[in-house]
Amino acid sequence: MIVVLEKNINDLKLQNVVKHLEDFGFAVHKSTGEERTILGAIGVQPNFDTRKIRILEGVEEVYRITEPFKLASRSFKKENTIFKIKDVTIGGNEVSVIAGPCSVESEEQIIIIAELVKKSGVKILRGGAFKPRSSPYSFQGMGEEGLKLLRKAADEFGLIVITEIIESSMIDLVYKYTDIFQVGARNMQNYSLLKELGSVKKPVMLKRGLSATVEDWLMSAEYILSNGNPDVLLCERGIRTFETYTRNTFDISAIPVVHKRSHLPVFADPSHATGLRDKVIPMARAAVAAGADGIMVEVHHDPEKALSDGPQALLPHQFEEMMQQLKLIANVIGRTM
Amino acid sequence: MIVVLEKNINDLKLQNVVKHLEDFGFAVHKSTGEERTILGAIGVQPNFDTRKIRILEGVEEVYRITEPFKLASRSFKKENTIFKIKDVTIGGNEVSVIAGPCSVESEEQIIIIAELVKKSGVKILRGGAFKPRSSPYSFQGMGEEGLKLLRKAADEFGLIVITEIIESSMIDLVYKYTDIFQVGARNMQNYSLLKELGSVKKPVMLKRGLSATVEDWLMSAEYILSNGNPDVLLCERGIRTFETYTRNTFDISAIPVVHKRSHLPVFADPSHATGLRDKVIPMARAAVAAGADGIMVEVHHDPEKALSDGPQALLPHQFEEMMQQLKLIANVIGRTM
Amino acid sequence: MIVVLEKNINDLKLQNVVKHLEDFGFAVHKSTGEERTILGAIGVQPNFDTRKIRILEGVEEVYRITEPFKLASRSFKKENTIFKIKDVTIGGNEVSVIAGPCSVESEEQIIIIAELVKKSGVKILRGGAFKPRSSPYSFQGMGEEGLKLLRKAADEFGLIVITEIIESSMIDLVYKYTDIFQVGARNMQNYSLLKELGSVKKPVMLKRGLSATVEDWLMSAEYILSNGNPDVLLCERGIRTFETYTRNTFDISAIPVVHKRSHLPVFADPSHATGLRDKVIPMARAAVAAGADGIMVEVHHDPEKALSDGPQALLPHQFEEMMQQLKLIANVIGRTM
Amino acid sequence: MIVVLEKNINDLKLQNVVKHLEDFGFAVHKSTGEERTILGAIGVQPNFDTRKIRILEGVEEVYRITEPFKLASRSFKKENTIFKIKDVTIGGNEVSVIAGPCSVESEEQIIIIAELVKKSGVKILRGGAFKPRSSPYSFQGMGEEGLKLLRKAADEFGLIVITEIIESSMIDLVYKYTDIFQVGARNMQNYSLLKELGSVKKPVMLKRGLSATVEDWLMSAEYILSNGNPDVLLCERGIRTFETYTRNTFDISAIPVVHKRSHLPVFADPSHATGLRDKVIPMARAAVAAGADGIMVEVHHDPEKALSDGPQALLPHQFEEMMQQLKLIANVIGRTM
Repeated sequence: MIVVLEKNINDLKLQNVVKHLEDFGFAVHKSTGEERTILGAIGVQPNFDTRKIRILEGVEEVYRITEPFKLASRSFKKENTIFKIKDVTIGGNEVSVIAGPCSVESEEQIIIIAELVKKSGVKILRGGAFKPRSSPYSFQGMGEEGLKLLRKAADEFGLIVITEIIESSMIDLVYKYTDIFQVGARNMQNYSLLKELGSVKKPVMLKRGLSATVEDWLMSAEYILSNGNPDVLLCERGIRTFETYTRNTFDISAIPVVHKRSHLPVFADPSHATGLRDKVIPMARAAVAAGADGIMVEVHHDPEKALSDGPQALLPHQFEEMMQQLKLIANVIGRTM
Repeated sequence: MIVVLEKNINDLKLQNVVKHLEDFGFAVHKSTGEERTILGAIGVQPNFDTRKIRILEGVEEVYRITEPFKLASRSFKKENTIFKIKDVTIGGNEVSVIAGPCSVESEEQIIIIAELVKKSGVKILRGGAFKPRSSPYSFQGMGEEGLKLLRKAADEFGLIVITEIIESSMIDLVYKYTDIFQVGARNMQNYSLLKELGSVKKPVMLKRGLSATVEDWLMSAEYILSNGNPDVLLCERGIRTFETYTRNTFDISAIPVVHKRSHLPVFADPSHATGLRDKVIPMARAAVAAGADGIMVEVHHDPEKALSDGPQALLPHQFEEMMQQLKLIANVIGRTM
Repeated sequence: MIVVLEKNINDLKLQNVVKHLEDFGFAVHKSTGEERTILGAIGVQPNFDTRKIRILEGVEEVYRITEPFKLASRSFKKENTIFKIKDVTIGGNEVSVIAGPCSVESEEQIIIIAELVKKSGVKILRGGAFKPRSSPYSFQGMGEEGLKLLRKAADEFGLIVITEIIESSMIDLVYKYTDIFQVGARNMQNYSLLKELGSVKKPVMLKRGLSATVEDWLMSAEYILSNGNPDVLLCERGIRTFETYTRNTFDISAIPVVHKRSHLPVFADPSHATGLRDKVIPMARAAVAAGADGIMVEVHHDPEKALSDGPQALLPHQFEEMMQQLKLIANVIGRTM
Repeated sequence: MIVVLEKNINDLKLQNVVKHLEDFGFAVHKSTGEERTILGAIGVQPNFDTRKIRILEGVEEVYRITEPFKLASRSFKKENTIFKIKDVTIGGNEVSVIAGPCSVESEEQIIIIAELVKKSGVKILRGGAFKPRSSPYSFQGMGEEGLKLLRKAADEFGLIVITEIIESSMIDLVYKYTDIFQVGARNMQNYSLLKELGSVKKPVMLKRGLSATVEDWLMSAEYILSNGNPDVLLCERGIRTFETYTRNTFDISAIPVVHKRSHLPVFADPSHATGLRDKVIPMARAAVAAGADGIMVEVHHDPEKALSDGPQALLPHQFEEMMQQLKLIANVIGRTM
């Protein structure tokens, strides 16, 4: 931690700041420049609240010099995190695609969609059974029945399952059916849930919150990692900005940023980021071109009848076209798909 | 819902849009202007996903004309919601003050603080026992022991208790000790939790999420209201913007906005909004001047030793000075405190 | 314009709203639904201030149903705007690349860079001579001398010139040397400048302001178009959000959004959007993958010595590699480069 | 400047960073902690581009430890800037009010309004003659005729004049009629204009840009100050955020923040911040309660007929009521009005 003191600070105040730092367990290193004195506070306390120093008299600014996350950081672990689920590798050179409907709606629906995504080369099937909807009056998902159908459809076509978990108390139930737990954007800082997922023996996909900085996001990953689960997969899905022509602003630059700061794989979800079908394909292409380790998209064979988020689901022929384009773009940057 | 069609839309597309609207249960009313045709879709479906129409060919824009929340809206209930907890009235002409430490830390601490806030005229004591911290390595609260101490201190000085609830499974536990449940900003869209709180027989304070629009916030209130609990109290605590000199941007204009859109009382928390002690008093004054129904502030007799958020806690003499100023400002706008 | 009235509005208030609309020149069309009455105000007044109606008693909400821009809109002109500057076509099927240093610094510098970008197939050379810097103490550009050198270097290698204009009074001067006028993000709403550029006989590139919505941006384009200059080229360069790990958030989804709303070509500038060299290439790829009509990047043969923005300039070998990748990605989506 | 190096950086890279710092003119001070080495770069270069160091191999983070503005900073000048214009003092203990119409529309209009604001104790009259409107089709102001009428009305009632300047080339013209130059939010980073205003012998009010951080804003003030004009007055008028129920988010916390960072007086404009009349009074009260040195509001005797921004103008009786409340609130915090 670096403590910048005010110009012409008097000795009494200076000694007081030094004493506080020492009381908090730091070794203090003073360095006097032309204009002002700076204190280096040496000692590793990643979660020290720097405001405790900033409010002391004579202090102008305080900089934390270590990132607040540790296990999630690239400086802690240099190599990319790569993990396998059955025969699917996440985080390696291959770009993964997760596809499926927003919600599981019926056996027929999920079987049709599982078949069509399988045909295009997808290995991971998505589908919601417990839906966190912004309106209490909207369809809230089929519940356990949906999980069963999702598992059945996946098994029929040799696919892996990802589905959303919205509450700690449901972990055991969802565990029975899923291969990957998905934590939605609105629960990114539901720390009770994250802690519990830290002791689960299946990978977790952590979506970025609408107003989460990359730092916040990696701090949330830290909750899962520090509770014992190393298989965390991040997913960018748009942040909230002032722009109103799109539902959210898809922060594609977060992809190279995460790759620099962290060793965890990072996916992108262009369906939720944009909210409208005709923006999904260009944004999926952009995410792969920017280096995403995978893409998550919604697809539906009959989106007009979808019970949730139909308007952002790709039609089957659009999906197929997208897959072809993504493969070519992955190749341009030396990856497979 | 209003559907604006593209200029020179052909008849086939027009008929298709009309048919979709009718299939979704709307009566359709066509009105042809100089430049384009507009369809009025009549029928009340507050949670209809307007994107289902926006993606049809020939549609330029769709406007939902009813607010998506109902029970929370001023048009549903004209009079202010006012409720009593023991002898304390929330939402009436009197401006309430909630004060106390960020976290309960020890019996001595909470007793000292309870006494000092009582002396300044406060009727509601705050204190966290289960803390949702952004770092897994930070102090996470005393748990049930903290709740017991908080209740004891409140009872000793005839105060009402508010404390945070972070998970559905803890509702029964927290219910035993608190008078008001507080839902933190990070859980504002934890719909499982909100639903459960809808069937609890105690008031709920719902803090605004960092990236929640006023509409999102009222939608979350709707979850509690529609599940049967009418005693909801909103609390503005700062939103996330690009500004970095403050922790969050305290959106004081949300106070008159909520009063216009909703009948629910709205409080403001200047401690979390600004994050630094020297900004708390001016922002508390501003919130009362803007018409807040109450203020929630953190105060600590020895903030340097506080286990969480000490830097934003007011010192006792600052707190007293603030209380005097707030009373005078409340009077200027015809309210008591 | 659609005027949604309050539930149970009385007749007096209703008549008052109707009278106001008629006085403002609208024909009024009343439509009564189950819950409330809606007025359609018919008549084209694109710049009518809807707040004039919103503040009337009994009005709940007002929706403008026409976009406030006209000449810039896709509904005004269906075909893409394509224009030629010498032998270079902007806005067609070919993806254009604009490259060069941030600032012109010396004859040697600009000649070296012009040669290297030419070799990679670039047709448009950039270089600043008058620099709008956020600090008054920073290098402000070489002025006219810089323009002369830029022109000379471009001519030597058969390139077209683009350079920034920061003030109306300099238009004549800059006109002598440039082929395209560039308006920077900070001047996007400098309406005096935009008006003057409307009567200039050379194309204008209008960068998006840091806090400009797509609508604001197209309104600024409207200033140029409505003053007589049809050759406007838009350029996305990042918007301001809460994220701090990147300088700005590159809003790549603005590319398909602009293509839907407007007929004007849209470029992207990944150098300014991200501010750091190692993010420029992935973001350039993403922009082309998303359908940008062109890319503007900074390149420098010796960026450590650059007088401005060296850290975001690509090195020559990086630039070459990027060009190869961009060509392949352009091909994937059926475009040339 | 503080340079944080990567863990386990090798000697070659370390020496390279040191060499670069020295070449840029800094003295280097090395300090080795438990986990990593930190370099202190000593020497005052307020506009040094820290990215030049951040991109070197082995560098993890760079912190500028001096603010980029100098003349505007509180550490440069401890005492508040106070200046007099005729008999009006800005920046002292008295809270100033600037009031008047958005635009000057006619002699009758400005005379009526000047009289009514004078009666309530206002000393400074506002009124626009050259209006920067977001639509090219909107009323753009009366031009010089408007300036003449504004001056005449002010003189008749012994008021001081403030009016907006939108272009360098108009400074001489506007100088003849105004006492204070106002720079609008959209021109806050029009550096050509700011430089010119630095050599003018009249005070300048600098409004905050919609997406300007407080730091950006003070950097723009620095342009005026460093070019020789010390009489700069800041004005908060709302920033752009994701919230849509208000036009902008009025950042009231910027008031104490500016007072801490700078010696310049700071006003607040609740009319533009909120955009609707019924929010103006509570926000004006909040700004004074937060410590604003003055308030700027729009008032109109017949706002329905106003040619611009009528919906945000206060009615005469509202204005009077507001003035009374503001005086009382100013007294609560020990100020006069």
